Amino acid sequence: MTKVEAWVAPSAKQKLVRQSIDLGELGAEEVEVAVEHCGLCHSDLSVLKDDWGASQYPAVLGHEVIGRVVEVGTSAKGLKVGQAVGVGWTARSCLHCRQCMSGNQHLCAEAMPTIIGHRGGFATRVRSHWSWAIPLPENINYAEAGPLLCGGITVFNPLAMYAKPTSRVGIVGIGGLGHMGVKFAAAYGCDVTAFTSSESKFDEARSFGANQVVSSRDSAAMKKLTGTFDLLIVTVNVPLDWQAMIGTLAPNGRMHVVGAVPQPIPVSAIQLIWGQQSISGSPTGSPVAIGTMLEFAARHQVSPQTEHYPMSQINEAFDRLEAGKARYRIVLDADF
Amino acid sequence: MTKVEAWVAPSAKQKLVRQSIDLGELGAEEVEVAVEHCGLCHSDLSVLKDDWGASQYPAVLGHEVIGRVVEVGTSAKGLKVGQAVGVGWTARSCLHCRQCMSGNQHLCAEAMPTIIGHRGGFATRVRSHWSWAIPLPENINYAEAGPLLCGGITVFNPLAMYAKPTSRVGIVGIGGLGHMGVKFAAAYGCDVTAFTSSESKFDEARSFGANQVVSSRDSAAMKKLTGTFDLLIVTVNVPLDWQAMIGTLAPNGRMHVVGAVPQPIPVSAIQLIWGQQSISGSPTGSPVAIGTMLEFAARHQVSPQTEHYPMSQINEAFDRLEAGKARYRIVLDADF
Repeated sequence: MTKVEAWVAPSAKQKLVRQSIDLGELGAEEVEVAVEHCGLCHSDLSVLKDDWGASQYPAVLGHEVIGRVVEVGTSAKGLKVGQAVGVGWTARSCLHCRQCMSGNQHLCAEAMPTIIGHRGGFATRVRSHWSWAIPLPENINYAEAGPLLCGGITVFNPLAMYAKPTSRVGIVGIGGLGHMGVKFAAAYGCDVTAFTSSESKFDEARSFGANQVVSSRDSAAMKKLTGTFDLLIVTVNVPLDWQAMIGTLAPNGRMHVVGAVPQPIPVSAIQLIWGQQSISGSPTGSPVAIGTMLEFAARHQVSPQTEHYPMSQINEAFDRLEAGKARYRIVLDADF
Repeated sequence: MTKVEAWVAPSAKQKLVRQSIDLGELGAEEVEVAVEHCGLCHSDLSVLKDDWGASQYPAVLGHEVIGRVVEVGTSAKGLKVGQAVGVGWTARSCLHCRQCMSGNQHLCAEAMPTIIGHRGGFATRVRSHWSWAIPLPENINYAEAGPLLCGGITVFNPLAMYAKPTSRVGIVGIGGLGHMGVKFAAAYGCDVTAFTSSESKFDEARSFGANQVVSSRDSAAMKKLTGTFDLLIVTVNVPLDWQAMIGTLAPNGRMHVVGAVPQPIPVSAIQLIWGQQSISGSPTGSPVAIGTMLEFAARHQVSPQTEHYPMSQINEAFDRLEAGKARYRIVLDADF
């Protein structure tokens, strides 16, 4: 089975067109997944627009895939035909480098993104290395789980690495990533403050589990929060008043960035020294971290708030995402 | 006993003059220490020059004190007359805040620096809260131990917090702090790289225990180190090529700053995200951390490389420090 139907970006910033493409022979260590749902992530838009200068065209986007294994390569391990899996940002890693061998496969220098130099999930089928097709827990809602595979793990991993249920956590930016961050941090047991500059999101942020909601543009409110947070997870990709934001960290606190703000963050060494604080970042997570996150999401009923489109309306979905209107995460349902 | 002899800075950037001063009544929780040796730290110079705008004059500087307890306040705990102690950057903290109560007394918002609003160790006597007069291990060389109390703990604490003996550690800047950092990291069991822009220090850095020495201005050498370090401890207080320096971090690595570089460090969120890396800072350490450091130094024979002056030559010593000629740490021996 090599011919599949896919939504293809012929070149940068073009509308997607439906085409038949040839995936070639299934690799011995790969599995092939029949796509049922696929989340639409902001980085699909970044690759479509070639924001990072790394895109390869023609491109098949989509890297928050939910589907079932339909073919298993001759050397693939641990998966069987019919099994429900998710495929996220990464489709392959080398398995033998220091990072892969120590369980940090998402930090492998040769990791292959699902949508750069590889055909993604806006198609009837997607392939990945067996290690990156993550088995889904039975009690998770498959139709809503797609965005967990990239956006979800991106905000969950900092919690898993750095938070305790007793932590005071701030989630900065209530959008596709941030709203899942609030839900995960609340389920994690933390005291959760949502930061948003959009007052229209205050009530919703509370409904996601925020104990407090603050406008990051309200300098008086920011000042009152001086010295408060053990962990800030910054999901926005625009510059903030970084000094004020770092000022809300408690001694020993950490500001963790998951939004790819292009402008350098000016960090005061003196501020970090006196507060014994950290600034850090992370991408997605390892296969084990994704599996752990899915189990946690299933146990605590954490799912993104989604808008569903049939995949045939993919261009409309991209337009809505680009306009910043999606509340909060778009999922495309396969309708080939 | 309230009258003591001290070297006093009458105001900013003035020569120190010897004067009799009155320390007033000993506080119930304080101890009084007869000064035998006192290290001269770069922050004594910063306070003398009012670099931070926080100095209070007349000032008695000196905060790397080695001496013996001569008087114990009525409510002071755990110390007795005649006991050898060290007093470092902090002379008092509140003891009841969240930081103090959780063993992070050095992060107490009300912590009193020994040389700001309090009389320091360039005197016959110095006082501190009992909790900040740290008992010295018997098998440590008292004449050389002074600089451990501030400079030593400043570079030891990041190792204690973040390094393992298997870590690849870079010490950036081989001066008063950095040369102790190299010695401590080598004793800690790490693979140690010393970064210095001064070729005249290469051999000495190796003699302190560095496995490699690299010029941070050698961009080819820096490039070869891409992705190497688990922990960088930056002791300089001048700007570096930060992007290149952060580029030498391994995945999951940390650049930890203990030098108060006044210029903001421009941090690329994308660089931190892809490498899952951290930038952090810390001041000195808690009383328990200082005690642990002193035990470690005694066990591993770690001591600073010092130049000794009689305290009566304190102005010459300050001149030498300011000229950057001290190799690597000056200790003043009380000669009142």
